[in-house]
Amino acid sequence: MNRIINEPDLVVEDAIQGYLKAHPEYFAQTDNARVLKYPKAPIQGKVGIVTGGGSGHEPAFLGYVGENMLDAVAIGEIFSSPTAGAFLDAFKAADSGAGVACLYGNYAGDNMNVKMAMKKAEKAGMQVKTVVATDDVASAPASEKEKRRGVAGEILMWKVGSAAASKGYDLDGVINAAQKAINNCHSIGVGLTSCTIPAVGHPNFHIEDGMMELGIGHHGEPGIEIMPIQSAAQMAQTMLAPILDDMQAKQGDEVVVLVSGLGATPVMELYIYYAEVEKQLSEKGVRIVRNYVGNYFTSLEMMGVTLTLMKVDDELKTLMDVPAYSLGLTQVK
Amino acid sequence: MNRIINEPDLVVEDAIQGYLKAHPEYFAQTDNARVLKYPKAPIQGKVGIVTGGGSGHEPAFLGYVGENMLDAVAIGEIFSSPTAGAFLDAFKAADSGAGVACLYGNYAGDNMNVKMAMKKAEKAGMQVKTVVATDDVASAPASEKEKRRGVAGEILMWKVGSAAASKGYDLDGVINAAQKAINNCHSIGVGLTSCTIPAVGHPNFHIEDGMMELGIGHHGEPGIEIMPIQSAAQMAQTMLAPILDDMQAKQGDEVVVLVSGLGATPVMELYIYYAEVEKQLSEKGVRIVRNYVGNYFTSLEMMGVTLTLMKVDDELKTLMDVPAYSLGLTQVK
Repeated sequence: MNRIINEPDLVVEDAIQGYLKAHPEYFAQTDNARVLKYPKAPIQGKVGIVTGGGSGHEPAFLGYVGENMLDAVAIGEIFSSPTAGAFLDAFKAADSGAGVACLYGNYAGDNMNVKMAMKKAEKAGMQVKTVVATDDVASAPASEKEKRRGVAGEILMWKVGSAAASKGYDLDGVINAAQKAINNCHSIGVGLTSCTIPAVGHPNFHIEDGMMELGIGHHGEPGIEIMPIQSAAQMAQTMLAPILDDMQAKQGDEVVVLVSGLGATPVMELYIYYAEVEKQLSEKGVRIVRNYVGNYFTSLEMMGVTLTLMKVDDELKTLMDVPAYSLGLTQVK
Repeated sequence: MNRIINEPDLVVEDAIQGYLKAHPEYFAQTDNARVLKYPKAPIQGKVGIVTGGGSGHEPAFLGYVGENMLDAVAIGEIFSSPTAGAFLDAFKAADSGAGVACLYGNYAGDNMNVKMAMKKAEKAGMQVKTVVATDDVASAPASEKEKRRGVAGEILMWKVGSAAASKGYDLDGVINAAQKAINNCHSIGVGLTSCTIPAVGHPNFHIEDGMMELGIGHHGEPGIEIMPIQSAAQMAQTMLAPILDDMQAKQGDEVVVLVSGLGATPVMELYIYYAEVEKQLSEKGVRIVRNYVGNYFTSLEMMGVTLTLMKVDDELKTLMDVPAYSLGLTQVK
């Protein structure tokens, strides 16, 4: 196992030390060692934006804390939910009295712990509402959307929800904007290799050399088909088909495109892939109004790529245009 | 081979299409398909900043084109020098009449092709001067610094040279600033796994599982020692020792620290490593005035890390503080 770590059981603690030392402009400690907050949070009068999730997806989740971005994050073990206590403390770190929007992904552990945290928050007199990301079209049919996993579309949900809060939306307004964002997100992933959790020491799952797994989850959850590896052009077609079907795409639609590597795929390949996505969307008359290409939501050292399309209207375009400053996403205009 | 590509021999062409489509704010075509320029280049009155190098190191080299950053880049095949013609055309794309600073790395092919391009540029009436990066302390002793390879320190050389040009330094001033930057850079890498060039189809070299190669080059050039893999804390010590010796570090020194992953090492491990570097420098009384942690200069899907320290004085600090906007490095303050 070729890792740059100290104790395998302490990788999350050790990484948090690095984040705090490297980026005091983005991260401040709280009383809970598994909760970091934006130093200026809570921001008076602004709805607090919180998320949480397992580690190993860097720059998600921590990397999206920042100006006009997340206010606090609950940090779990690798590929594991943060505790209910961490979610609760993240709510507290983010709440200025204007309420908290907890925008997170649809996983059993996260659902359970967020619900427990919300009960306690309610007792403490806080107002917390949630949006649960369900953007992975491969994880359940459209008729059972509530069963779908949240994947890289979460980043666009955070961007939109955070921008809405910064523009002064109230809690219901923020929730509505974030919900619209994730409703309009359609994602699918392809895995090419596996990854190894340091404390486990052997690969999480296995993909044969020369094969790819369509619809794989961010923790190696089984996809919908294992098939011989395709060219970038074919892969774009294979991944766009269920996405465009799910969004009932039509000529003239405008979308934000997010292409994220899963960790070990070279960045140049993400651009080769993006060129194919752009070409095929252009042929269908679907217009890309903004794109993100890079390692935005990873799974340790997996090779592979996720594709997310978010269909946008005027409100979503305006919110996506709000400047943002964070480790994972900085946009000046 | 688990790649996201079309034709293995056309990966560079295909990736360039992706860069152009995704980032028209950063990249414009020139008459040479292997030269991209900043759309606003050449910028009237400003010294043009050019580099060039092999592909496969993304976001280097292309990713450092931008505002207050590089003006044009000559693009080579994977791990191969751009042609003399590409360097010449990059000079032309960057030159507003104020001259061109070509800031590149010390590799045989690049040296040869830059020299040929400079002869032709001179005949065409252009003024071009160079700085050759030699920051890899593992590649030759200090007494033969001219034999050392250029590695991730090149990014700091580009940042400083580009900032100097943007602040109105003349060609000699830009060259002096960039030379000071790279003279003050001391880098070393550790490789944990190999990488595969798509057109070759098998790994470039081999590192046994559980072993690490100290001093490895960005293309898998042999390092100075192969040893059992160390903890992050030990690795930081092993890598800091030759760097601090080379820079003759003393208490009170101020440095910029750049920790770059080689491609496949998870980002959380880079932060675990940075925490150790920060701790050990702090114990020695060396102060970090700015840090960069991430995948800044990669080698396809190699696992591993490079560490660069640049000792700074007031001029270098001022130039490092100039805002910059590019794919690989955006800093607002």
